[in-house]
Amino acid sequence: MLNFNFYSPTEFVFGRGTENEVGRLVQQYGGHKVLIVYGGGSAVRSGLIDRVKKSLEAHSIEYVEMGGVLPNPTDVKVYEGIDLCRQNGVDMLLPVGGGSAIDCAKAVAAGTIYDGDFWDFYEGKIIERALPVGVVLTIPAAGSEGSGNSVITKASIEKKISIRAPHKLRPVFAIMNPELTFSLPPYQTACGAVDMMAHIQERYFNNTPETIVTDSLSEALLRDIIALAPRVLAHPDDYDARANLMWCGTLAHNGLCGTGVEEDWASHAIEHELSAMYGVAHGAGLAVIFPAWLTWMLSHNDSKLKQWAKNVWNVDTPEEGIKRYKEFLHSIGMPTNMQELGIENPNPEQLSQRLHEHKGEQVGAYVKLQKKDTLEIYKLAVEG
Amino acid sequence: MLNFNFYSPTEFVFGRGTENEVGRLVQQYGGHKVLIVYGGGSAVRSGLIDRVKKSLEAHSIEYVEMGGVLPNPTDVKVYEGIDLCRQNGVDMLLPVGGGSAIDCAKAVAAGTIYDGDFWDFYEGKIIERALPVGVVLTIPAAGSEGSGNSVITKASIEKKISIRAPHKLRPVFAIMNPELTFSLPPYQTACGAVDMMAHIQERYFNNTPETIVTDSLSEALLRDIIALAPRVLAHPDDYDARANLMWCGTLAHNGLCGTGVEEDWASHAIEHELSAMYGVAHGAGLAVIFPAWLTWMLSHNDSKLKQWAKNVWNVDTPEEGIKRYKEFLHSIGMPTNMQELGIENPNPEQLSQRLHEHKGEQVGAYVKLQKKDTLEIYKLAVEG
Repeated sequence: MLNFNFYSPTEFVFGRGTENEVGRLVQQYGGHKVLIVYGGGSAVRSGLIDRVKKSLEAHSIEYVEMGGVLPNPTDVKVYEGIDLCRQNGVDMLLPVGGGSAIDCAKAVAAGTIYDGDFWDFYEGKIIERALPVGVVLTIPAAGSEGSGNSVITKASIEKKISIRAPHKLRPVFAIMNPELTFSLPPYQTACGAVDMMAHIQERYFNNTPETIVTDSLSEALLRDIIALAPRVLAHPDDYDARANLMWCGTLAHNGLCGTGVEEDWASHAIEHELSAMYGVAHGAGLAVIFPAWLTWMLSHNDSKLKQWAKNVWNVDTPEEGIKRYKEFLHSIGMPTNMQELGIENPNPEQLSQRLHEHKGEQVGAYVKLQKKDTLEIYKLAVEG
Repeated sequence: MLNFNFYSPTEFVFGRGTENEVGRLVQQYGGHKVLIVYGGGSAVRSGLIDRVKKSLEAHSIEYVEMGGVLPNPTDVKVYEGIDLCRQNGVDMLLPVGGGSAIDCAKAVAAGTIYDGDFWDFYEGKIIERALPVGVVLTIPAAGSEGSGNSVITKASIEKKISIRAPHKLRPVFAIMNPELTFSLPPYQTACGAVDMMAHIQERYFNNTPETIVTDSLSEALLRDIIALAPRVLAHPDDYDARANLMWCGTLAHNGLCGTGVEEDWASHAIEHELSAMYGVAHGAGLAVIFPAWLTWMLSHNDSKLKQWAKNVWNVDTPEEGIKRYKEFLHSIGMPTNMQELGIENPNPEQLSQRLHEHKGEQVGAYVKLQKKDTLEIYKLAVEG
């Protein structure tokens, strides 16, 4: 077990009707004027944005708003948000949505009170301060409501960068009403489940000895997601199933599953190139990449795969574990190869080239992957 | 699954040598002058207090100190601490020890900046503000390093009261070096494991339907503690075993195992009277009370006991689960009845009488216990 620092200060306000507490929470955390950040029109059409505004008004919180944040949010929208915040004297960000809205809001939070270009942070500059971010979560998947991470794509060069600033970017509160997820389409629901599993597995596959507690919590959450995802797809308005799955998404990525281990994160890096080049949904991309990564590991480092197969899938071999994983992914409507993902002419060579241009010579930690290795993984992902 | 609010803002700094970061952390959280609070002389003799002081001095943090906080800390020591803080302009509490030092420090933190008598808070008054508390943990058991709870005994009337103020009393940081627990005596180590299990079980035994994730995490932690406690007792300086057990102690009581459930806490209330009347160690008292509580539940509400028996002990019936639990407790040197606990002439009637005087007509939630019920449980605990 390695030394670690676990810091998850976000106040999670979870359950039915909790979006109506947003005004009180903004006030509690010192906000006077917020930028409401959201994606497509569903949050507006459903009346959610109106309920949020009503709660803000009841607590005399002023607001401006920015809609239209798309999946894989870009720097363009971040600059728009920064301008809005500066022009209006905004002192807190309020994303209403999933990872895209939250990650965009985090970038705006850091960029608004920074003299230079916010993109500096995504190129390695340390974030010294940021406006507070409060969240109303509607898509359980990215775990951004409880993480200090933010992923932004620089549109002009299709470069997708993930940063981590636990002390500056973690939301101060996250409102999580499972009812708000009832209307999520099946594909997006399934993508979310895949992303949650990936967040756990990126940490679980490590060479650190004796990570007993972290392993057992991670395996428990993986088994829960495997049980809950089909239930949610079969009954989209099953409150308890939605609630448990939503909570899994947060715990998968708030750091709990990474305590004392050396984390990997190669699969996320490998997938980010797919999303950036082909515009595929992040979760669906992971459904293709993670099994390919595992398959490659069979002949390179299968030590932790044996434990995973036994404790998560209740089977005897890593090969059988990967088979069950793929069957599970298919059962919830996810692709497991690039063709199923809708990429007709994938270019593994170019993907691998770009990956290492962006991330350096090596990615990952469980096995440090060089270009020849990631090329093999992309090729495995073509066929699935 | 019920609505819940999960808030665990403590920064946990975990691993070898972390006590040397205390100066940096006090500074980071705004402390200029701390009151170091500790128990017996072991923290002094081991050189730990010296290392803590050295780190404070390196960051120009001033300090005063108060040793001699005993198990089941009393109001007398709290008043002493409040006087020291006021006289010296202390702005942060720094307990070095286990639950007793931390709980005492929390009471001092709230009492120092309150005009009235700090005991008001233990009689129900809401804590509006408190000085920040940072922790150097040496005894994993109470979970106070990550909780907003504090238990203080009013010495003059042997009245032990537990309060909860998650937003005011949670430590801002907790330094956790498993090496500091190598020298813990076996009895105290075992008491700690029992307390951790009790903290999980007080939440686990509930009637709330569909607490899937909370249950699976709780069961995983219980299984881990059951595996780790004997290992730690057999090899007191096994770093990884000590580290994993220490982390279990925090997760058992930082709120994670209580998300979305109606918690019980009857066994703690029932045990507190034992500690207050007979001065027994809290963990050892729980080893006697919890099995008695479970035995009573067999004929009153065994629904969750079935799941517990299966998923924690891997047996088919609640009766068999309780049998395994007691065998486990004996195997780690714990008592399971009052005689083994060293109480020669226990007085169930008086214990039950005092319990309800202190806690009102009913205690617990899984089954609401009245005086006739707690009397039966105390009687069951006499024989074990």
